[in-house]
Amino acid sequence: MASESGKLWGGRFVGAVDPIMEKFNASIAYDRHLWEVDVQGSKAYSRGLEKAGLLTKAEMDQILQGLDKVAEEWAQGTFKLNPSDEDIHTANERRLKELIGETAGKLHTGRSRNDQVVTDLRLWMRQTCSTLSALLWELIRTMVDRAEAERDVLFPGYTHLQRAQPIRWSHWILSGAIAGNPLGVDRELLRAELNFGAITLNSMDATSERDFVAEFLFWASLCMTHLSRMAEDLILYGTKEFGFVQLSDAYSTGSSLMPQKKNPDSLELIRSKAGRVFGRCAGLLMTLKGLPSTYNKDLQEDKEAVFEVSDTMSAVLQVATGVISTLQIHRENMAQALSPDMLATDLAYYLVRKGMPFRQAHEASGKAVFMAETKGVALNQLSLQELQTISPLFSGDVSCVWDYGHSVEQYGALGGTARSSIDWQIGQVRALLRAQQA
Amino acid sequence: MASESGKLWGGRFVGAVDPIMEKFNASIAYDRHLWEVDVQGSKAYSRGLEKAGLLTKAEMDQILQGLDKVAEEWAQGTFKLNPSDEDIHTANERRLKELIGETAGKLHTGRSRNDQVVTDLRLWMRQTCSTLSALLWELIRTMVDRAEAERDVLFPGYTHLQRAQPIRWSHWILSGAIAGNPLGVDRELLRAELNFGAITLNSMDATSERDFVAEFLFWASLCMTHLSRMAEDLILYGTKEFGFVQLSDAYSTGSSLMPQKKNPDSLELIRSKAGRVFGRCAGLLMTLKGLPSTYNKDLQEDKEAVFEVSDTMSAVLQVATGVISTLQIHRENMAQALSPDMLATDLAYYLVRKGMPFRQAHEASGKAVFMAETKGVALNQLSLQELQTISPLFSGDVSCVWDYGHSVEQYGALGGTARSSIDWQIGQVRALLRAQQA
Amino acid sequence: MASESGKLWGGRFVGAVDPIMEKFNASIAYDRHLWEVDVQGSKAYSRGLEKAGLLTKAEMDQILQGLDKVAEEWAQGTFKLNPSDEDIHTANERRLKELIGETAGKLHTGRSRNDQVVTDLRLWMRQTCSTLSALLWELIRTMVDRAEAERDVLFPGYTHLQRAQPIRWSHWILSGAIAGNPLGVDRELLRAELNFGAITLNSMDATSERDFVAEFLFWASLCMTHLSRMAEDLILYGTKEFGFVQLSDAYSTGSSLMPQKKNPDSLELIRSKAGRVFGRCAGLLMTLKGLPSTYNKDLQEDKEAVFEVSDTMSAVLQVATGVISTLQIHRENMAQALSPDMLATDLAYYLVRKGMPFRQAHEASGKAVFMAETKGVALNQLSLQELQTISPLFSGDVSCVWDYGHSVEQYGALGGTARSSIDWQIGQVRALLRAQQA
Amino acid sequence: MASESGKLWGGRFVGAVDPIMEKFNASIAYDRHLWEVDVQGSKAYSRGLEKAGLLTKAEMDQILQGLDKVAEEWAQGTFKLNPSDEDIHTANERRLKELIGETAGKLHTGRSRNDQVVTDLRLWMRQTCSTLSALLWELIRTMVDRAEAERDVLFPGYTHLQRAQPIRWSHWILSGAIAGNPLGVDRELLRAELNFGAITLNSMDATSERDFVAEFLFWASLCMTHLSRMAEDLILYGTKEFGFVQLSDAYSTGSSLMPQKKNPDSLELIRSKAGRVFGRCAGLLMTLKGLPSTYNKDLQEDKEAVFEVSDTMSAVLQVATGVISTLQIHRENMAQALSPDMLATDLAYYLVRKGMPFRQAHEASGKAVFMAETKGVALNQLSLQELQTISPLFSGDVSCVWDYGHSVEQYGALGGTARSSIDWQIGQVRALLRAQQA
Repeated sequence: MASESGKLWGGRFVGAVDPIMEKFNASIAYDRHLWEVDVQGSKAYSRGLEKAGLLTKAEMDQILQGLDKVAEEWAQGTFKLNPSDEDIHTANERRLKELIGETAGKLHTGRSRNDQVVTDLRLWMRQTCSTLSALLWELIRTMVDRAEAERDVLFPGYTHLQRAQPIRWSHWILSGAIAGNPLGVDRELLRAELNFGAITLNSMDATSERDFVAEFLFWASLCMTHLSRMAEDLILYGTKEFGFVQLSDAYSTGSSLMPQKKNPDSLELIRSKAGRVFGRCAGLLMTLKGLPSTYNKDLQEDKEAVFEVSDTMSAVLQVATGVISTLQIHRENMAQALSPDMLATDLAYYLVRKGMPFRQAHEASGKAVFMAETKGVALNQLSLQELQTISPLFSGDVSCVWDYGHSVEQYGALGGTARSSIDWQIGQVRALLRAQQA
Repeated sequence: MASESGKLWGGRFVGAVDPIMEKFNASIAYDRHLWEVDVQGSKAYSRGLEKAGLLTKAEMDQILQGLDKVAEEWAQGTFKLNPSDEDIHTANERRLKELIGETAGKLHTGRSRNDQVVTDLRLWMRQTCSTLSALLWELIRTMVDRAEAERDVLFPGYTHLQRAQPIRWSHWILSGAIAGNPLGVDRELLRAELNFGAITLNSMDATSERDFVAEFLFWASLCMTHLSRMAEDLILYGTKEFGFVQLSDAYSTGSSLMPQKKNPDSLELIRSKAGRVFGRCAGLLMTLKGLPSTYNKDLQEDKEAVFEVSDTMSAVLQVATGVISTLQIHRENMAQALSPDMLATDLAYYLVRKGMPFRQAHEASGKAVFMAETKGVALNQLSLQELQTISPLFSGDVSCVWDYGHSVEQYGALGGTARSSIDWQIGQVRALLRAQQA
Repeated sequence: MASESGKLWGGRFVGAVDPIMEKFNASIAYDRHLWEVDVQGSKAYSRGLEKAGLLTKAEMDQILQGLDKVAEEWAQGTFKLNPSDEDIHTANERRLKELIGETAGKLHTGRSRNDQVVTDLRLWMRQTCSTLSALLWELIRTMVDRAEAERDVLFPGYTHLQRAQPIRWSHWILSGAIAGNPLGVDRELLRAELNFGAITLNSMDATSERDFVAEFLFWASLCMTHLSRMAEDLILYGTKEFGFVQLSDAYSTGSSLMPQKKNPDSLELIRSKAGRVFGRCAGLLMTLKGLPSTYNKDLQEDKEAVFEVSDTMSAVLQVATGVISTLQIHRENMAQALSPDMLATDLAYYLVRKGMPFRQAHEASGKAVFMAETKGVALNQLSLQELQTISPLFSGDVSCVWDYGHSVEQYGALGGTARSSIDWQIGQVRALLRAQQA
Repeated sequence: MASESGKLWGGRFVGAVDPIMEKFNASIAYDRHLWEVDVQGSKAYSRGLEKAGLLTKAEMDQILQGLDKVAEEWAQGTFKLNPSDEDIHTANERRLKELIGETAGKLHTGRSRNDQVVTDLRLWMRQTCSTLSALLWELIRTMVDRAEAERDVLFPGYTHLQRAQPIRWSHWILSGAIAGNPLGVDRELLRAELNFGAITLNSMDATSERDFVAEFLFWASLCMTHLSRMAEDLILYGTKEFGFVQLSDAYSTGSSLMPQKKNPDSLELIRSKAGRVFGRCAGLLMTLKGLPSTYNKDLQEDKEAVFEVSDTMSAVLQVATGVISTLQIHRENMAQALSPDMLATDLAYYLVRKGMPFRQAHEASGKAVFMAETKGVALNQLSLQELQTISPLFSGDVSCVWDYGHSVEQYGALGGTARSSIDWQIGQVRALLRAQQA
């Protein structure tokens, strides 16, 4: 094969290595995050080499001490990168050789950089998952504390953003805390994978498979989707129109133009990060799609995604915890937002208890709602006579229906909005928190 | 509030209900898939009502018999939809009422349609996950069978699509089968969620949380990403240039223009479906982002996504199984593709065994590769004298390096490409298959 | 090369063609949409063949008449598909041959099915873009009609969902209508591409490039993003808490459980479709990523995406038009939602006009807001003396500030919320509408 | 409304502003990119204020000089950020006030920070689009230069990665260059939008609409999809198995383990970036979905996306230009890869020219391919007698078919692979390049 050298047509670059390519190729800018796990992995590997008879005890000790010195330099900020350090692995090996000489060259016997890359990232993710998990539990703990303290506050439950039925405020809080809980399960999955209790079954697959990265990014995306929904609710509840909650100044900002404004920036940022985090998940899957098996440089995209998502999740979880713990609720507004038409379902249940099939009772209650609207009165202001034109089953005891506290107490099934049910939910989440700490 | 009726400005529609809106709103076109689980769920619910004293024994029996009749009509294709049947739930209830009269109205006491939607979908997904899981295991079984039968075939392992080292063909097959395996774990997760062993903790969360849908779509996306990579490998291996495998005619098509062509359409379609399936996952997460809590009609998007992805996965897994089971391999081409330069790493290891640190040995082997290229000979045709100009550690036993079979047998560590290691991997996958059947 | 036949290991399928593969491969189920353009394209091609001397005039006439007959059968619903009709192209060619005999075989001289696929899809998209464009203009027309009729209604403008400043209701409507407008530009781009005024420059690129599909899907995604935001606004404005608008019954549905509910299903569905449409765009780009050049079967994914998105857009645009045209506004609620603190910026401008730099004026106005809050009075109820403790520049004419109508009239710059500015915007959009019709 | 202060339950943070929230909220870390356009925008705005009579000439001059000083400090790296500088706008305004005193406060009369944010970003994107466009044209120029110089090199055209027909190497190059061209159109769209020739029609829409960002990100995604496909082709063509091209050392890297390897890292990185860039596009659209109209803090996500994508595109375009300009082609391997079966379509055309309908001719040629395969000879080694058993139309002149040069010369239609057609394509692209420079 003829092999002419150099630049043939056009193009900007002449010489041995295009500096833009060098920068494009290098991952050192972001994989300095990995210095600690890279040293940790190399120390373990050198012990393995000694056990396999490929290093003497003395060589192993020399390497271990050299690696400790490398780690010390990173920790103290004195590690100096060379322009030719392409990634964290070559940087650490280069420095090790400067410190201990040729023995350093034995450290990489039988392992490729691709092995190191994936091992380091798995080790790093074990740490980061542990940190994020702690932050997530802290958020859940804060929510359940509030739920317990405020379980006697009632306010409207909504579906389709239309007022539906009275519920306890704690019921809403716990719906978020509990949505947080399944994430713990996923984390367990990840942790199980990352503690290396099991070995990878196939060496080809081991260097090229990035399921653990994809699953982490998806966990983060789903977690952010939940948090975006919680943020949306709180933004709405904080409007002048709803007026149910008020964000602490610590999590709000003013307007540069309008002096009277206080904006829920913290919640808007939480909501927005769902897009960013999912974008990273989408990007990684697209990068993986259709790649030939084993290692391809494309896989280098995994690390920046993981680092950025980890930072984002860490900030979001802490801000969310801060928001929830300092949020004020406006009990009077919550109470005033309850209206008799939200008891229309209870009115139907009243008829069911008198023996009417639910579908008929639903229709009868709907007629009462219409009658009240037509007359321009509240639903509970219809007279017994008026109600009896709809169904003869109505009698004096219908007045018991018009009590919000009584209404929520009906929902005593597990998961419901009755006081006992809320207590049970709090108990369940507290049990999870205790299990977590054990 | 003034309430003027009808159309005010422009617009196409006048009257009580816009027919396009009706169609837009209705889900009946695709949720007929759910007839069976809807009946199943309603039967369970009516038993619950009887236990709670809200139905008499006679009423419950009447409802159960009516529901069986509804199911029979669906099964026999005689169920007639009315134009006003908005979804499967209203259709079944409407028909039940026609069959058994007013008692049908009692069936929905205390449950909302939102409850039904989510319960039905969970029941349906329990079935579909079980079916897909069986298809996935069938694919894995086929792969491990082949891996066992062909474990003596060697061919080039690639990284970056550059020939790297000789490996066993079975090593490649198992890298796919094993990548399949973690998916089984995810399915377990889903199954655990879907067998309703645990109740949902919070009623607000229960109707609006769609984690089980999102996780299913992500599992499918990740599974398809793996399959797209396997398909890419086989498309490459099937080109004239590689010539390692030949697709069965059953999974190929000809060209309308070029008589000599045989195209790997099956593999290209498998590869392409990764995009479609991921698109559904992306779409659902975007739909969920920022939704207020509890039920919003937006959630209706979940079902078509799940149905389409389930159909796609079912077809892909069956076609992949067919492709793998009928694929022919061209052993001679595989053998001819092995070249001495792929043993350059072994040459370095030879020096390592003579006491040279790996990094030096890597450099020495690199020099040998360069010398051979310069002289225009194969790496194994360098004379001992020539090798000794690179390092005096080379001696007569270097000739043992030039044996592909010997090379692969070095990789006896678990996960490697040695015969014993392949056997171990086969054993591991077979154990999973047995565990699955138990 | 040894070539063993049939199934080797495991697998479900034995025989010449796996029926699941046949179904997996076939696109006929969805590309029946293309019958009309396929006939249209073939008629044009046969004229080209005659001009090139590859068909006689008689043969061309025979083919043209045969194709007309094929089209007639499709139009009347009498075209019968054979199980072996893999796609619309083979179906039409098969039928043509049945109708006119061997001459049919000459139609495909020098064109491949890949050419046909891409030509048909371009023709179909030309039609569908034209239809969707008309629907989009209808929506814009409806919006501008309303904007004109209701331009004297004031209500709160929001940023961060916090009440900001009074604006005209028409200002809000036009922000949507105008956001719709740039889409028209994109459509122009598409139309320009689709009218085939320019030929494709490179035959390799022509069959494998799907930019026109990707751009259509992205246009739809961006359009849906805008519509999802408009839907979100209207859902909020329709809550009990905001109470600014009321959806027509034609675009609402009731609750199966709660008799008093009326849910904005139409708007929620519009909002949700943003996810679905974007998912298709994401899926196509992932499918395209990393494909080798020229035609690969992966490209078959383009059509279902385009068909589904086209149907979705068509329904969404019509429902949105219906919603806007029948929406009622509650003028009293809008007026009551205006509060003096929304004039805090005007108060600052008052001081600016008296010579104070804006940043100081902003601070002074902020102090007034704080003073009013502390005293528990509305901002406009602070006495002149109280205001003068903040700045001596306040004098009697400050009372002119407290007039919402006066406030909006300040914003007379083009694009603003003054009556004249709204009229100008209406004029701009009407000009676009007229240009469209010309 | 009762308003209790401080932290209520749990949580980490006590005090006036949570420092994590401050960091979470601040955009200064990445919007320093904007210092130049922020100063540029403010200078223009101060001129507008003077014209409107809100600044005196002297005040305007004072502000302009102050802003020039601010710009100078940024340019010289002496601008010092305060911890309280939330974003580039507040930083610049704070510094301006330090430099010129209270007059600085007049600069923001009548404009909000939201206006500044969007104006700055539009100005910055005008610059970046111009830069990226130049890089894209440089890549196209390099490709067309090569296409011209190497137009006599033939090699296999592929569809489905199966060898199809002989084509000119330049035909492949131009399919990439031309796919690049439509992007130029999109850029024009952007440029047209960004040169502010037209004003924004509606002030509400102006601050909250991010179409120009979304369109930029989609342009980049589509451009990267094309480049990922070109990279895929070149990775394949560079394998040992294809052996058509060889990457310059400047764009390759070696293996840490295998001395003989040279990996196409540059191309793999280009391919992988398609995922990252699309992920940003997906993330932004998800962030926008369902946002209430006007400004919400969620919109802050736009900038990091744009900055990262701009950097990525810039590197990718330069590396792609370098790769193309230094790539070596192996003419002998390209020639050897041409095989007589690739002329099977020509054989069919031979029969068409003798009067046989194409479909029959296709079948006859297919029989010849099968006969040759069965006999184990090349297609052009079938004797005339053997061919005549398939069709009596074969005669001695069939030998003319077996000439690759003759084959490609048949495709003289515009866009084809004949020399004249390639020259025409080169001319077209050169005309675009000239138009670009004008």
